[in-house]
Amino acid sequence: MSSNNLCYEENGWQTLKNHVEKINLPENHIKHLLTKKNRFNKFSQKGGGLFYDYSHQRLDDIAFIDLVNLAKSLKIKNLFNSMKMGETVNQSENRSALHTAARHFGNTPIYCKGKDVMPDIRRVLNEIKAFSRAIHNKEIVGSTGKPFKDIVVIGIGGSCLGPEFVSKALKAYAVSGMQLHYLSNVDIHNFGAIVSAIDPESTLWVAISKSYTTPETTANTLQAYDFMRSKGLDPSRHFVAVTSKGSPGDDPSNPMLKVFHMFDFIGGRYSVTSAVGGVPLSLYLGYDVFERFLKGAEEMDIHAAETSPEENLPMIAALISIWNNNFLGYGAQAIIPYASPLSRFAPHIQQLYMESNGKSVTKNGDFFKEDTGVIIFGEPGTNAQHSFFQLAHQGRPFPVEFIGVVNPQYNQYNSMSKGVTNHQELWANMMAQATALAVGKKDEENPAKHFSGNRPSSTILLNDLSPENIGRLLSFYEARTVYEAFIWDINPFDQFGVELGKKTASGIREEMVKRNENSSHKFDHLDDISKYYLETLFSGKI
Amino acid sequence: MSSNNLCYEENGWQTLKNHVEKINLPENHIKHLLTKKNRFNKFSQKGGGLFYDYSHQRLDDIAFIDLVNLAKSLKIKNLFNSMKMGETVNQSENRSALHTAARHFGNTPIYCKGKDVMPDIRRVLNEIKAFSRAIHNKEIVGSTGKPFKDIVVIGIGGSCLGPEFVSKALKAYAVSGMQLHYLSNVDIHNFGAIVSAIDPESTLWVAISKSYTTPETTANTLQAYDFMRSKGLDPSRHFVAVTSKGSPGDDPSNPMLKVFHMFDFIGGRYSVTSAVGGVPLSLYLGYDVFERFLKGAEEMDIHAAETSPEENLPMIAALISIWNNNFLGYGAQAIIPYASPLSRFAPHIQQLYMESNGKSVTKNGDFFKEDTGVIIFGEPGTNAQHSFFQLAHQGRPFPVEFIGVVNPQYNQYNSMSKGVTNHQELWANMMAQATALAVGKKDEENPAKHFSGNRPSSTILLNDLSPENIGRLLSFYEARTVYEAFIWDINPFDQFGVELGKKTASGIREEMVKRNENSSHKFDHLDDISKYYLETLFSGKI
Repeated sequence: MSSNNLCYEENGWQTLKNHVEKINLPENHIKHLLTKKNRFNKFSQKGGGLFYDYSHQRLDDIAFIDLVNLAKSLKIKNLFNSMKMGETVNQSENRSALHTAARHFGNTPIYCKGKDVMPDIRRVLNEIKAFSRAIHNKEIVGSTGKPFKDIVVIGIGGSCLGPEFVSKALKAYAVSGMQLHYLSNVDIHNFGAIVSAIDPESTLWVAISKSYTTPETTANTLQAYDFMRSKGLDPSRHFVAVTSKGSPGDDPSNPMLKVFHMFDFIGGRYSVTSAVGGVPLSLYLGYDVFERFLKGAEEMDIHAAETSPEENLPMIAALISIWNNNFLGYGAQAIIPYASPLSRFAPHIQQLYMESNGKSVTKNGDFFKEDTGVIIFGEPGTNAQHSFFQLAHQGRPFPVEFIGVVNPQYNQYNSMSKGVTNHQELWANMMAQATALAVGKKDEENPAKHFSGNRPSSTILLNDLSPENIGRLLSFYEARTVYEAFIWDINPFDQFGVELGKKTASGIREEMVKRNENSSHKFDHLDDISKYYLETLFSGKI
Repeated sequence: MSSNNLCYEENGWQTLKNHVEKINLPENHIKHLLTKKNRFNKFSQKGGGLFYDYSHQRLDDIAFIDLVNLAKSLKIKNLFNSMKMGETVNQSENRSALHTAARHFGNTPIYCKGKDVMPDIRRVLNEIKAFSRAIHNKEIVGSTGKPFKDIVVIGIGGSCLGPEFVSKALKAYAVSGMQLHYLSNVDIHNFGAIVSAIDPESTLWVAISKSYTTPETTANTLQAYDFMRSKGLDPSRHFVAVTSKGSPGDDPSNPMLKVFHMFDFIGGRYSVTSAVGGVPLSLYLGYDVFERFLKGAEEMDIHAAETSPEENLPMIAALISIWNNNFLGYGAQAIIPYASPLSRFAPHIQQLYMESNGKSVTKNGDFFKEDTGVIIFGEPGTNAQHSFFQLAHQGRPFPVEFIGVVNPQYNQYNSMSKGVTNHQELWANMMAQATALAVGKKDEENPAKHFSGNRPSSTILLNDLSPENIGRLLSFYEARTVYEAFIWDINPFDQFGVELGKKTASGIREEMVKRNENSSHKFDHLDDISKYYLETLFSGKI
């Protein structure tokens, strides 16, 4: 029997189920919960450098205590610490999950299968520091002597979305003149648009792939090599790789400016603070900014590992997420940062969370009795208010996580409109949305103007968009994600669900290869549908 | 009694409900449906210039016929034609919904409240044509004599997302040297990042707002005016407006290079083919490209209005969407274009669909008995495969709409990897995902590698990313959206759900104004939560 499915009977899951009926009573509408004494004081916390407000959740004192008790009885804080100490928490792949070690600045060793991983991690960090400085000091330049100014990351999924989010969030810190591009999609439009925008002589390509066999990354790397050669440039002097030791990218017969190692104990979607993020972000922002980002993440890691459940921000967020999902029945969550530089934050968390927790099977191989991960989506506010918030207010409800930034950059642009600065207008809207969703407004005369309210949200506040705060925010969501998985007893570190599509694509690719090699190859032995698509592709016409 | 709620009893809704049990039987798993004779032939259609494949839906012959009968009995094709002919289909606001008139190139008049709207529409189109040509020919230049090369759209929601999607989709057609920027968010980071990237002397600002009172757009316009003045430039020679006749933006005492009119019979989220899209897109792409885009949209409008339900692509898509939502219980849908230039397509459709159909009340003021609009989200493939597709395959299922492009741009980059071009690899993946989601794979030994399959998808094919095809795709989704609303009998053209947040923000703004005017103004009379946020904002520290 699964240890997890135990939680139904023994660890308080059923107690919480029983409480749903009470929360659904009209007197427990959020507008009433908000009037309870000390509501805000009890349902908000500061920790790890962030502020987290969950006063607008459909949560009363009893539900909160029951959720905390669930966390305690499942000993998820111990699991988190086991993960952080290097235990083999990714059992299906027989690996540790040591993304937290990538930002461990303490002196203690961290053992993975009996070996301290810290010397390797520090060696790679020092290599990144030295290399990025040599690029910025123009000690390493392109093959024609021009300094590097266009960095193109070739990588997909975890090798793109995390660095993309962070580089956009910290754009204000970018090294002057440096541009960062992301070549992720195998779609040739992605490649074509980038090579139209770069100066090849000043371009440094950063190929990122743990195995160095990811089809998209292999195809794009090949295009890039051929493109550089077509410009009369030596690719080996314009390329670096981030890959596993001994992979095809780490092959001395394929010379490059530098190869940085990544490790099998850090999975793709958790790899922003490893060399995967470290190389492009240090090139784009400078190593010092990257190190500040790591230190912020470390602070939240420590908070997540050491703080008691009642005051543990990512654990509380995980419990609330599960409450909204498995108990109140919301199948989706929105992340709405009131900060344009966080425009790629939701897509990163969408990957982090949905790839980690979009599973049905517990570690012991039992099907979990309920749905696990939800759909995550989001766009920045106020933009989202003018887009899909009609549905959030009057259609199918979904919980929202607002993210606010107390101090903006660009304070020099301080013209006032309607008596407030742009930043104040932004905050007025962020505050108003949480209230309007929760409280609603009766309109008995015109049902089309009736707002039922009782729509839950949380708000996370950052003091500013500093590298440290972006690190804290990242670590908060990473910890929240694994805490949810620990409650369900699923493995948030594997991703077997992507394998079938890959395998099916291989079979189709083989048919294409045959046709490329022999233009009279027919697809008649295939099913109608495959045949139609393949013939359409090769004929060029629907 | 609502005409719509009739559909429960009289129009076949219950017949469909009864059929769900049958569809849920193991023998109706999609993998079995796919083996039925003529499956692909029966469940795919070409029309309006696009190809639409719904063979991988959880749909059998009976369900399809019952859905078509529902559409027929509700006479939604008549409703669509009424809309197109100018009837007051937006009853709550006493307006027509004539986005289709914006791309009507026929000679017939279109009457709205007794007046033919076509002369005004043609006048504005001619103004856009003349103005954009004068900009491209450098007959109109900036106040210091420099040609315009940076176009900044100031607009939010419908005044941004549509033009943004189209400009990215058609980037390959951009007028040489022209850059297009979007200043939508009131967040000062959006403004700061744009003014860091433009040359003010070569910048043309395009303020888009029907009422010209949208707070975000007003605030950003003010910042832009002050910025231009601070650079010693005359804003009136660097600004145009797209707004309603007689709005504060259409005021001769506030001179501008040009004011283009928009009309109250085209709502924001349906306005891409009006001057809202016309001005920025003609400046960025040239008027001729914009006109080709309109002509593609017109072709699909005609298909949507005139084709019988059995062969009507957007109507079938609407019926399938409702089948998946109200009958099979999926609360979200993904849009996955296998085309990087369509990276902002899902956010546009997210707005179009969720703002149109995120409602609970029918036109007659009754609460609809079931949920209406679903959550729409998406990212391009193959990127999405490396992000949230784990959940799509093994977690909570949701229907997917794939979009494929037969002929890519950038055919000059044709290096082969694994024996195929990048574009072929892209297609192999797109085809594979639809199959893998539908068919699944049994794994009795290892449940973590078991794929249940039976996960529905459709695929839309475009011949290429031409302006015409982008117009067809847009019109397909616009028609699909209103067809769904017509089935539910909700009004897809109003958006009362955004009002409460606006009103609540006004109250908060007033408090901020008081503090700005008097630094000793306290927030003690407010609730704990508002007080905390306001004090935090003004103190600058969480």
